[in-house]
Amino acid sequence: MTNRQWLLSERPIGMVSEKNFSLMESAMPVPDAAKGEVLIKNLMLSFDPAMRGWMDDKPSYLPPVAINEAMRAAGIGQVIESSNPDLPKGTLVQGMVGWQEYLTAGPQSMFPPNALPEGTPPNIALSVLGGTSLTAYFGLLRIGEPKAGDTVVVSGAAGATGSAAAQIAKIKGCKVIGIAGGKEKCDWLLNAGLDAVVDYKSENISQRLAELCPDGINIFFDNVGGDALEAAIENAADNARFILCGSISNYNDASPKPGPKNMFYLIAKRIRMQGFIMFDYIEEVDVAMADLIQWLTDGKLQWREDIQEGFENIPKTLLRLFDGSNQGKQLLKLADPE
Amino acid sequence: MTNRQWLLSERPIGMVSEKNFSLMESAMPVPDAAKGEVLIKNLMLSFDPAMRGWMDDKPSYLPPVAINEAMRAAGIGQVIESSNPDLPKGTLVQGMVGWQEYLTAGPQSMFPPNALPEGTPPNIALSVLGGTSLTAYFGLLRIGEPKAGDTVVVSGAAGATGSAAAQIAKIKGCKVIGIAGGKEKCDWLLNAGLDAVVDYKSENISQRLAELCPDGINIFFDNVGGDALEAAIENAADNARFILCGSISNYNDASPKPGPKNMFYLIAKRIRMQGFIMFDYIEEVDVAMADLIQWLTDGKLQWREDIQEGFENIPKTLLRLFDGSNQGKQLLKLADPE
Repeated sequence: MTNRQWLLSERPIGMVSEKNFSLMESAMPVPDAAKGEVLIKNLMLSFDPAMRGWMDDKPSYLPPVAINEAMRAAGIGQVIESSNPDLPKGTLVQGMVGWQEYLTAGPQSMFPPNALPEGTPPNIALSVLGGTSLTAYFGLLRIGEPKAGDTVVVSGAAGATGSAAAQIAKIKGCKVIGIAGGKEKCDWLLNAGLDAVVDYKSENISQRLAELCPDGINIFFDNVGGDALEAAIENAADNARFILCGSISNYNDASPKPGPKNMFYLIAKRIRMQGFIMFDYIEEVDVAMADLIQWLTDGKLQWREDIQEGFENIPKTLLRLFDGSNQGKQLLKLADPE
Repeated sequence: MTNRQWLLSERPIGMVSEKNFSLMESAMPVPDAAKGEVLIKNLMLSFDPAMRGWMDDKPSYLPPVAINEAMRAAGIGQVIESSNPDLPKGTLVQGMVGWQEYLTAGPQSMFPPNALPEGTPPNIALSVLGGTSLTAYFGLLRIGEPKAGDTVVVSGAAGATGSAAAQIAKIKGCKVIGIAGGKEKCDWLLNAGLDAVVDYKSENISQRLAELCPDGINIFFDNVGGDALEAAIENAADNARFILCGSISNYNDASPKPGPKNMFYLIAKRIRMQGFIMFDYIEEVDVAMADLIQWLTDGKLQWREDIQEGFENIPKTLLRLFDGSNQGKQLLKLADPE
């Protein structure tokens, strides 16, 4: 029995490409029963912009993926061999399963596998009930502290995190404006209940935000950085909260681009700008998940999934995040549960 | 009887210069007794970097100074004519007295005059017990939330605000590093009790901060912006608080300079960056002043004053702030109290 993996074979300089990865066939890994390890067969992979950061050799909130290590990725697998009574054979697990068909993992692993709640389909666990929605939840509610009537602007609004953040802001009674690229994504956002959208491909972001937010922006949820961030600073209200979640416009820069030219407004407008990482709120996941499930059940959360297939298509599926061709949460299916 | 004023006669493009101001002689203003106005003779003016921002015609926390209006400036004056029993003749008052020998002001004025606490010398009221120290107090304590043992870095540390912020951080039990320009200023800071200094004129800020802050910067009190801000982001600890107080390196830019190239660290390191204005804490001034007076009495606050003289030297005294030639709080004396 063999295992296939996509290894990070070189660090990208600038835009990530398929040639940064190499396919490796090796023997199936053997779980160490003494360490409580199980053998996991991967079923579905999640693709997230943050993965680009893990490929760079610089200090961050997680160590970089090592050269010739299987690329790190969240996903869902199924336990196919177990001597751990907590994760019996057949259990669906979620975690950092990586770009590989099989892996072993146990409680001492860097990312111990967690059992998926009974009956949750893998795609749902990775999309509307996945890390992107938790990221939106904690960023908006814990850092943004939205109040009913606040004007909330979300960049990357058609993405998995952005669309969740925008809809949670609507649930909290805010006026919500999304920034996205192209008519199709903008139409979907309006259909999902946003008050207005800015199409950054055809409109001047700052000018449109000035029209749409006559009293200024109270909360900016940023997934993009760059021009979107500068435009939001320009149009911020006094005491605005800026939630720095991601900066997808910069992840593939070969050399770092300068920041916004209007940083002085952070002082004059008393803006509070704060970065965060979802993992910091891990203790509160149960509370967040209960809310998300309730909103989902009530029909208040819409979402889209873009499900590719095939082990051989893994590297090129990552690229879809950065050329904007994904429509909703980017996933790739490897196998069905047994 | 005549009055002399320095008017803002044109808005500076880039570096402020003496030619942006013009000297005006006019008749002495007459207070309106029905409005509770008093006639004030100016004794001492305060010079603050924020004044440069008031000269630009852009939205900010105060309206811009109008063309051909006396330049706005904080200072101390003495009531020389009064029909207001709360401010009898002879009372020393502080407020936005402006670049002029005499002014009238009352409760309905944009900046109503406040009586100086009995016995406070004008220079002390404008320096160690002035707005710069209050700015340091509220920024450091309300936004920075220092804990004993935190590593605190202050840019513009030899300035009036910076030196107060650095010493208050020492009082709170922090390790404090100041960034300043030149040996003389750095020596003074070490003498005032700072743990270390970075001389930005002769040292690489980021490299020195890396050496001096092996566990990263917990709090950065920024008066400067530009390279200092970028270096502090580079060396920030996780969950650092960045207090944006001023950005003197950018105030005289003819066109806005780009922001830090390493904004992504705000996410990876979960940095909270917040701008503020002292006026927002006006309700808490009594509490702050009690603390400052106590620390002053206990010999825990050192300060320096750079007192120029002469009405004709007002515009060129402002320039001292921007070429770094001032040593401590920049003041200009116009007259002694009667």
